[in-house]
Amino acid sequence: MSRIKPEQVKRIALVGTGVIGGGWALHFLARGLDVLAYDPHPDAERRFTHMRDYAWPSLEKLGLAPGASPQRIHFVARLEEAVAEAPVIQENSPEALQSKIEVLARIDAATKPEAVVLSSTSGLRMTDMQVKCEHPERTVVGHPFNPPYLIPLVEVVGGERTAPEAVDWAVEFYRAFGKRPVKLDSEVPGFIATRLQEALWREMLHMVNAGEATVEQIDEAITSGPGLRWAITGPGMNYHLAGGERGMAHVLEQFGPSLKWPWTRLEAPELTPELRDKLIRGCEAESAGRSIPDMIKARDAYLIGILRLLRAPPP
Amino acid sequence: MSRIKPEQVKRIALVGTGVIGGGWALHFLARGLDVLAYDPHPDAERRFTHMRDYAWPSLEKLGLAPGASPQRIHFVARLEEAVAEAPVIQENSPEALQSKIEVLARIDAATKPEAVVLSSTSGLRMTDMQVKCEHPERTVVGHPFNPPYLIPLVEVVGGERTAPEAVDWAVEFYRAFGKRPVKLDSEVPGFIATRLQEALWREMLHMVNAGEATVEQIDEAITSGPGLRWAITGPGMNYHLAGGERGMAHVLEQFGPSLKWPWTRLEAPELTPELRDKLIRGCEAESAGRSIPDMIKARDAYLIGILRLLRAPPP
Repeated sequence: MSRIKPEQVKRIALVGTGVIGGGWALHFLARGLDVLAYDPHPDAERRFTHMRDYAWPSLEKLGLAPGASPQRIHFVARLEEAVAEAPVIQENSPEALQSKIEVLARIDAATKPEAVVLSSTSGLRMTDMQVKCEHPERTVVGHPFNPPYLIPLVEVVGGERTAPEAVDWAVEFYRAFGKRPVKLDSEVPGFIATRLQEALWREMLHMVNAGEATVEQIDEAITSGPGLRWAITGPGMNYHLAGGERGMAHVLEQFGPSLKWPWTRLEAPELTPELRDKLIRGCEAESAGRSIPDMIKARDAYLIGILRLLRAPPP
Repeated sequence: MSRIKPEQVKRIALVGTGVIGGGWALHFLARGLDVLAYDPHPDAERRFTHMRDYAWPSLEKLGLAPGASPQRIHFVARLEEAVAEAPVIQENSPEALQSKIEVLARIDAATKPEAVVLSSTSGLRMTDMQVKCEHPERTVVGHPFNPPYLIPLVEVVGGERTAPEAVDWAVEFYRAFGKRPVKLDSEVPGFIATRLQEALWREMLHMVNAGEATVEQIDEAITSGPGLRWAITGPGMNYHLAGGERGMAHVLEQFGPSLKWPWTRLEAPELTPELRDKLIRGCEAESAGRSIPDMIKARDAYLIGILRLLRAPPP
């Protein structure tokens, strides 16, 4: 079996062109690909055209690949027709396990075995979805964030019957076409970003439910506070940069005890020496040799840029 | 008792000038105030000067108030000398209840009764800290986020013996001098932003502990994904803008069931009709008459600005 090199892909097939599938279409069009699209909804093409007319100016501002055109998409009437000759397919059907199993089996049966089949599922496991595929070894989750034409993150993970090579191919493909793929080590429910987002959302629901804070207070607290930093540094690096010369090691000594405090309804794990080591080593790996003062300097410069941007009307 | 109007304040006293107190000093200097500072550490003034030399160019980039000068700070040798004549005091002593009680009592005894005493505590309740004050009615929590000279959020809440007028004065004072105060309805442990941040952090610790993800994967997933949106729209508004014409109402119908899924270790509250109503009404209040398409347009424009900013070297 010979698979095309990820960076040599010229066209992609999309199954489903709603908010997520249509967002993917815009992203790949902006990166210069041809798109073949299938969606069973009678109004699908009109809805997509509306979305494209609205979003294309944004994509122009972000910068288009050479030859990119909003016209290089074609809707076809049958799923099989869309996927038959495509080297890569991104599936965006409704988020229900039975329907995902059937759609992936149809795609699998209609494509060449070397094609890579990607699913946008936001939380289902590929192990559970690939059960009716003849060639499950090339089925991979590629979970985007909304809107997929602006947010760079794609979480990539295979199922038990997926070949590691197919996962690596997917990572390289997304990277070659302007995304920031994060390859997961295991099929954890909700993947990474949704799990973290969901923890925050559930604590928020408890607070609103208990009358401890309103939606408006919570949104204002996030966008005026930690939300500004999270665009620049993740939760690990945030603490690393707040810990002085010793970074995360110092933070864990100083704030370790507060993990026992009722600062959220989620109980923390025990801060064992092994967990400490993983956190400290992770921050060191992420620093990649940059000093803490240099990273703080960069964060502050970006933070000032974001503050200046956000205090003016939208550009 | 006649208290100065918040916007007429010309000077502030700071007790404690470490990372947080020093950050407050820089913020108030940049807003044109005179600062009188006390810190028992023998090296406090030198450490502050180092911080000031590093951070002042950032404050210049953000824009200074007329007459603002990095020189308008004076360190004094006794706490009482710093606070005696100040109309407002911001306390930044170590985060331990007994020590906070003593420091606030000393400040309280040394100031005029109409002065407002603000505490930077990141999680202690003013009800517990104000117990030895003769005039607890003017003691208020004003919790900043690091670095206080860049992050606008201040969470403001009083204790059981605090007068509501003092809380309102604090809110107006922070707003008049360039902060974005959020007034809390109740003394919930960890306030608002720290509670939410801590829920995310604890889920992250569980994931790292269980080998489900590394620090690097988590940080990359946040900064390439939801972190970019959180600088612009909080967790409530994020969902509201993802729900089509009906916003949050549609999201709760569609994703309500996923609150039962194991997408984080934190169990969600029951999605009762009352909770639904609070969430929907909150998003409507926050929208303040703006349409969802208009808000999406603004969000996307800011998002593009942030993406363009972050892909270049720090400005």
